[in-house]
Amino acid sequence: MPPFSFTIDAECPETWARAGTISTPHGTIRTPIFMPVGTQATVKSVSPEELREAGATIILANTYHLMLRPGSQLIAEFGGLHDFMHWDGPILTDSGGFQVFSLGHLRKLSEEGAAFKSHLDGSAHLLTPEKVMQVEAELGADIILPLDICVAYPCSHEAAREAMERTHRWAERALLAKQHYRPEQALFGIVQGAFEGELRQESARYIGNMPFPGLSIGGLSVGEPKAEMWDILCSVTPELPVNKPRHLLGVGSPEDFVIGVNLGMDMFDCALPTRVARHGGLFTRAGRINIKSARYRAEQGPIEEGCDCYTCRNYSASYVHHLARTEEQLYYRLGSIHNLRYMLRLSSDVRAAILAGTFSAFRDNFLANYIPTSEKVRTDQRKKWQAAHKKWQEGQQRDM
Amino acid sequence: MPPFSFTIDAECPETWARAGTISTPHGTIRTPIFMPVGTQATVKSVSPEELREAGATIILANTYHLMLRPGSQLIAEFGGLHDFMHWDGPILTDSGGFQVFSLGHLRKLSEEGAAFKSHLDGSAHLLTPEKVMQVEAELGADIILPLDICVAYPCSHEAAREAMERTHRWAERALLAKQHYRPEQALFGIVQGAFEGELRQESARYIGNMPFPGLSIGGLSVGEPKAEMWDILCSVTPELPVNKPRHLLGVGSPEDFVIGVNLGMDMFDCALPTRVARHGGLFTRAGRINIKSARYRAEQGPIEEGCDCYTCRNYSASYVHHLARTEEQLYYRLGSIHNLRYMLRLSSDVRAAILAGTFSAFRDNFLANYIPTSEKVRTDQRKKWQAAHKKWQEGQQRDM
Repeated sequence: MPPFSFTIDAECPETWARAGTISTPHGTIRTPIFMPVGTQATVKSVSPEELREAGATIILANTYHLMLRPGSQLIAEFGGLHDFMHWDGPILTDSGGFQVFSLGHLRKLSEEGAAFKSHLDGSAHLLTPEKVMQVEAELGADIILPLDICVAYPCSHEAAREAMERTHRWAERALLAKQHYRPEQALFGIVQGAFEGELRQESARYIGNMPFPGLSIGGLSVGEPKAEMWDILCSVTPELPVNKPRHLLGVGSPEDFVIGVNLGMDMFDCALPTRVARHGGLFTRAGRINIKSARYRAEQGPIEEGCDCYTCRNYSASYVHHLARTEEQLYYRLGSIHNLRYMLRLSSDVRAAILAGTFSAFRDNFLANYIPTSEKVRTDQRKKWQAAHKKWQEGQQRDM
Repeated sequence: MPPFSFTIDAECPETWARAGTISTPHGTIRTPIFMPVGTQATVKSVSPEELREAGATIILANTYHLMLRPGSQLIAEFGGLHDFMHWDGPILTDSGGFQVFSLGHLRKLSEEGAAFKSHLDGSAHLLTPEKVMQVEAELGADIILPLDICVAYPCSHEAAREAMERTHRWAERALLAKQHYRPEQALFGIVQGAFEGELRQESARYIGNMPFPGLSIGGLSVGEPKAEMWDILCSVTPELPVNKPRHLLGVGSPEDFVIGVNLGMDMFDCALPTRVARHGGLFTRAGRINIKSARYRAEQGPIEEGCDCYTCRNYSASYVHHLARTEEQLYYRLGSIHNLRYMLRLSSDVRAAILAGTFSAFRDNFLANYIPTSEKVRTDQRKKWQAAHKKWQEGQQRDM
């Protein structure tokens, strides 16, 4: 199997955006890329063939959920997730840290690791940096993440520093432990530091200097205003090594994807596109629409004219509306496929613009047309984006 | 478009089974055939392409549900159900009579028709034989059914006769009304008569002598012991015209399909295969299994060795078990596809046996191996089948 590698194909002269190519044992990924989330070894309601047809080149699965059910040892009996779930392309597994963090009072952190009770049956578990390496080796993904500590928003400076420093110590333990497992798996480092620019920069330098072939930015998109997330990226990106892929954990929406690329990110994963689809929210060039709205009742055209997804090629908006209103299972599939194809076409379009040297114009045009949910939300979002962009420009100037 | 036709390709010398070919404007159907049920213009969780791949050649949709939502006029704007739901093969729509019958106190019958309140919003509707012809013309199916009256089980002789006679008068009104609509649609007659052999024979002769190109047997599978259903078919089949296709409404399971063919039926529709699949019940040669059972947790083979369905070709029983236990939406699809392919392969196998002159042996072998749910149920079922078979044999002798 070919080893993991990353090459930069083009860099935007005006922003931090770049286009790259990641090689993994299960295939090649052109970046920037959106990665569909298959929490329980399935992207909800979508088959592997449909993911492939929608343009997916890598998917994410959740270590926490899979270690509890069906168990990583069972998946190891299949040789790993690829054979278990019938997906032969690249897979990334997270570390379980974020889910354990979300358990609240059900988990207890110590230097050793995170003790927690299963949300399924209350059984007691201990996740350590070493244990996570073992579990992820059993799951057999192409890219794996080490156990980290994700703090709540907001949190004190002390708590932020403590979590970051422990994350760094755990990163070292993970690197050591990984030597015992599959050499073909690429272990990314995770940058933490909560919402403090200086901590983030310290973490970016620390993790960036360790022998990780890629970096994930964790602890963002946890309830903070979006402007704060963009602020943090403005601080972090200049501190990251240029020649390693950068993964923004748990982001995002179409507009977050475009802004994230602008701020130097290469890989994105988020359950949002499939989750909002299941509730009727479908992406179009003009923003997110609600297919359950009465205005689609008799619409004989597709959800979006010109969309090349399976849904738009074969069904009217009227029929999709009917399925959504009657809560038919086929709806969840058709809606999810549309949004995944949207995100993956957006990934290709953004990459093409970077390669063509026209990313800035693409970004401005996209953000001018895409209405996230309402005019108010859009205005708010643009203000935040502008503020982040201003800060980014200041960062550029500092670099000069 | 080619008109409706039916030809008999082979008859079993030992039973009433026959193999035939139905031509419709949207394609050819080889009988005996199982018809998947797409109540709301979608076979739950399965796409049209997947139906085609599973071997479906005709599907059923429900007039009652579709006239209420999204409305038959809206579907007419698409030229009918085929374009609306992206299924270009033959479609059969029922009359709505059975659903109205199921509404209980929400409906009121008169000679004019069935007044009822929608189960969705309580709005008042009146279904008449003429109205049903209009609605079904708007839906545009290849085969349509007239409004009939389905009585409860058990019911008095008076009620059974009254319902049957009104069904006959409504059949005449339907034939007259249909002249105003699409000539390419084939209107089948419906045989009623509750659970009284003589009424059923009278109805079979009456409806059989009217200019319907096919016959549906209604009012069965409404809660009666199965032996009574087979008894009724033993009475009805000899009274039906030989040269018209016979549709057994609302039946059935794999074993009901085989027994129904034995008793002279050509077409079957039932939501059972997809409904039980959604609850974990999957068909195999040896009977129905529960995929949620712990015995499938680590089963690396398919649900059934040798099964050629999409699910068994691509996924282990262990993975399907995992999806079923975690209630993932992909499970409902994979389970439904397996059971539909099972029913449609059974249809092909039964037809092949009839053509080869080996149907009796096929039936005996099938019923000896297929365990419906438990040993007790199987024994009971076989006793009932044997009693029905005995009665059928007596019927044969009477005919000689």
